[in-house]
Amino acid sequence: MKKSDIGLIGLAVMGENLVMNMESKGFTVSVYNRTAEKVTRFVEGRAKGKNIVGTYSLEELVASIEKPRKIMMMIKAGSSVDEMIDKLLPLLDDGDILIDGGNSHFPDTARRTAYVESKGKLYIGTGVSGGEEGALKGPSLMPGGSPAAWESVKPIFQSICAHVEDGSPCCDWVGENGAGHFVKMVHNGIEYGDMQLICEAYQLMRDLLGLTADEMHDIFAKWNTEELDSYLIEITTEILAYKDTDGEPIVEKILDTAGQKGTGKWTGIAALDEGVPLTLIGEAVFSRCLSAIKEERVAASKVLTGPKPSFDGDKAQFIEDIKNALFAAKIVSYAQGYTLMRDAAKTYGWNLNYGGIALMWRGGCIIRSVFLGKIKEAFDNNPALTNLLLDPYFKDVMDKAQDGWRRVCAAAMMNGIPIPAMTTALGYYDGYRCARLPANLLQAQRDYFGAHTYERVDAERGKFFHTNWTGEGGDTAASQYTV
Amino acid sequence: MKKSDIGLIGLAVMGENLVMNMESKGFTVSVYNRTAEKVTRFVEGRAKGKNIVGTYSLEELVASIEKPRKIMMMIKAGSSVDEMIDKLLPLLDDGDILIDGGNSHFPDTARRTAYVESKGKLYIGTGVSGGEEGALKGPSLMPGGSPAAWESVKPIFQSICAHVEDGSPCCDWVGENGAGHFVKMVHNGIEYGDMQLICEAYQLMRDLLGLTADEMHDIFAKWNTEELDSYLIEITTEILAYKDTDGEPIVEKILDTAGQKGTGKWTGIAALDEGVPLTLIGEAVFSRCLSAIKEERVAASKVLTGPKPSFDGDKAQFIEDIKNALFAAKIVSYAQGYTLMRDAAKTYGWNLNYGGIALMWRGGCIIRSVFLGKIKEAFDNNPALTNLLLDPYFKDVMDKAQDGWRRVCAAAMMNGIPIPAMTTALGYYDGYRCARLPANLLQAQRDYFGAHTYERVDAERGKFFHTNWTGEGGDTAASQYTV
Repeated sequence: MKKSDIGLIGLAVMGENLVMNMESKGFTVSVYNRTAEKVTRFVEGRAKGKNIVGTYSLEELVASIEKPRKIMMMIKAGSSVDEMIDKLLPLLDDGDILIDGGNSHFPDTARRTAYVESKGKLYIGTGVSGGEEGALKGPSLMPGGSPAAWESVKPIFQSICAHVEDGSPCCDWVGENGAGHFVKMVHNGIEYGDMQLICEAYQLMRDLLGLTADEMHDIFAKWNTEELDSYLIEITTEILAYKDTDGEPIVEKILDTAGQKGTGKWTGIAALDEGVPLTLIGEAVFSRCLSAIKEERVAASKVLTGPKPSFDGDKAQFIEDIKNALFAAKIVSYAQGYTLMRDAAKTYGWNLNYGGIALMWRGGCIIRSVFLGKIKEAFDNNPALTNLLLDPYFKDVMDKAQDGWRRVCAAAMMNGIPIPAMTTALGYYDGYRCARLPANLLQAQRDYFGAHTYERVDAERGKFFHTNWTGEGGDTAASQYTV
Repeated sequence: MKKSDIGLIGLAVMGENLVMNMESKGFTVSVYNRTAEKVTRFVEGRAKGKNIVGTYSLEELVASIEKPRKIMMMIKAGSSVDEMIDKLLPLLDDGDILIDGGNSHFPDTARRTAYVESKGKLYIGTGVSGGEEGALKGPSLMPGGSPAAWESVKPIFQSICAHVEDGSPCCDWVGENGAGHFVKMVHNGIEYGDMQLICEAYQLMRDLLGLTADEMHDIFAKWNTEELDSYLIEITTEILAYKDTDGEPIVEKILDTAGQKGTGKWTGIAALDEGVPLTLIGEAVFSRCLSAIKEERVAASKVLTGPKPSFDGDKAQFIEDIKNALFAAKIVSYAQGYTLMRDAAKTYGWNLNYGGIALMWRGGCIIRSVFLGKIKEAFDNNPALTNLLLDPYFKDVMDKAQDGWRRVCAAAMMNGIPIPAMTTALGYYDGYRCARLPANLLQAQRDYFGAHTYERVDAERGKFFHTNWTGEGGDTAASQYTV
């Protein structure tokens, strides 16, 4: 009997759909699940008559796969992955490849890559985005880990992934050890940001302009034919049109509390660790936290005061302004995310292909958009681009979008509408293009109370000065105590 | 020979000053430093003729101290503390007390408390704030760790700490294991926020109103007599008046690049871990990151465009508005910081005294201010206060301050002046008092692409719904895959 091309462990919806996808591209897939009934149900159900082999022990799974074996784990991130690795390693031969397709934290993937390699096997940690539908029809795949594993896995991954119009696969090698899961993490952070920006546009239209869900549907439908053309705008359009059983827009029946526990938070922590101002994703994560304390907000709304929102300008113009605010802030968010990847690549020694990452995200995943094609072009034109905002196309967009963006932020602030992501993005834009920030005063303060020293505008960099501000403390700089 | 009341290890400036402070309050202090010459220089110099005993080995140090021994480490945070603990433990008797007065990360302090207690000894990790001058004249002390240690340490700590007008000490027991260092960490995060807000006020006056350092000096001097009366406003006032050798304000000669590597970052990470929207401190940390890339900003300033700042309104009114923006945003920052402490207390099982914490910060430390007295009053009036903004005094301030605050944020946005802390604080205020955030749309999106389910406004909490948005994916909700 011909052996399978790949094995997959974990038959939840994502795992099942990936198996169906692989099989549809001509690969034979062995499957295993801890609960045996799931295997039986799958092979006798959706998988019936297909080149899918049910197995009922890890030994049987391993024995059924062609060498070098490729075994993909679609199981809960965390200690389950470590336990599964330890169960599999004794059954494998040198050169076999373990693949983790879950949402693992990138330091875990880095650690596991080193561990599995130390046992003579190879390891891949891959981001998989696109949800259940993507898994079935073509996800975005972001693999990293043992470079030697890539040639064996590439034909399968580049077959099952999404492809853009010109046929390019939304999957390429990201980099060593944790690079794939790092890029997936940033992708998820950006997804948090994109969703938050759409929510803010919606809130402005609803609470400041007083538009109905149907009116907003028409606006988003139009936006989806322009620069903002993207999966998230598309589903927003459909959501706004969806009616509940009573004929009312269902979106207005949904409770406004969102959870956050996962990769958005990790992205924020990674940014703090790297010292990269990732303000928009940070606000998006914090906005979810604030949404979660619904009862507290309802109580506060009865105590704390604010202006009554009122708009008496040109509505059509303001809707255009909101679009510009959304687009400009989105560009800032991606610029921040790319800066995080650039700085992390330095820290972890990855050689990331930034245009390639844009292409991986261009299709298949939740943040897929026409816009990502522009990012790919920007990095193709200049692979060493310091910041996306400096690319001529994006600079031009910012030039044109900023007047409306500023009007939207100012109007929201005057009317008491919280749009933290749009405003922090504007603060970043104005800060990034500010040659002289007020940190000189901050350095003076730190030198005043802690003798931390400062540099001077009229001296070379790396030369540090201390002022005896009070005439008391002495001229000695601190060396130890750092706040 | 009478034995010493306490021992101190680590004779950098902070350590030396704490010893001088203790001795001045009538305590005999044994000192030790790894480099023996520092001990000799100290006992023959500043410590000469005082009840300060130089020791040249840990054995000698330990033997010189009255039981139960109290030994305070003022050494570099990190592995040095673990190494010192391991050197000291075999020399100590049961019930002796080790104290870490460095800026240790609170999880390390929690771990060390358990470890030292497992050896029969007691442990305190204490925040020490106030810089070098505070250490000498009266710091703010925030001790946590082994509760059984507190009675022995209390007389010394409450003597050497700062005291407010009515004589209350700026030191009290914070809580078990890492609580003291956690509260110190939040203190430092708040310090980041306070400094950033002052910098933003300064930048608005400089870049939008075109004021000179002398004019700003007068404004800050006036503010320091009102609600904003605080150490940081006071030193800002003095900094603005300080002239360089050429007679020009020295603040304008200082390079605008600030570092961030420490406790501000930890505070942001703790907030992300707890799921608490700590947006202002987050922006303050990120602003330091942005300040650090000076060359990149200078280059970007030549490419990216923005409005030319211009102000033609009532300057005096706008200066008043800036004060209101600073004050209101500061209140938000403390409200966020207190929320973080409240949620962390739940997570770690601490019984924090929030009014007591305000009192500890009221004097001695960098963030000391009249304002902290108001926070103490708020928690004295209602120890279970959910959010500082809901206290009648602060609610009233927000009512009065918000018009000016909104005008400042709007003007900054229209004029291209980055004031990320003031604007994020306003976004939080408006979000916190918003009964209906747009997270309903976000939940619809998550249910659309990931079958994550949602709650409804017209159903009880905890009941989850799923919509088959496309008519394709089926009605099954996801259970495994979470973005």
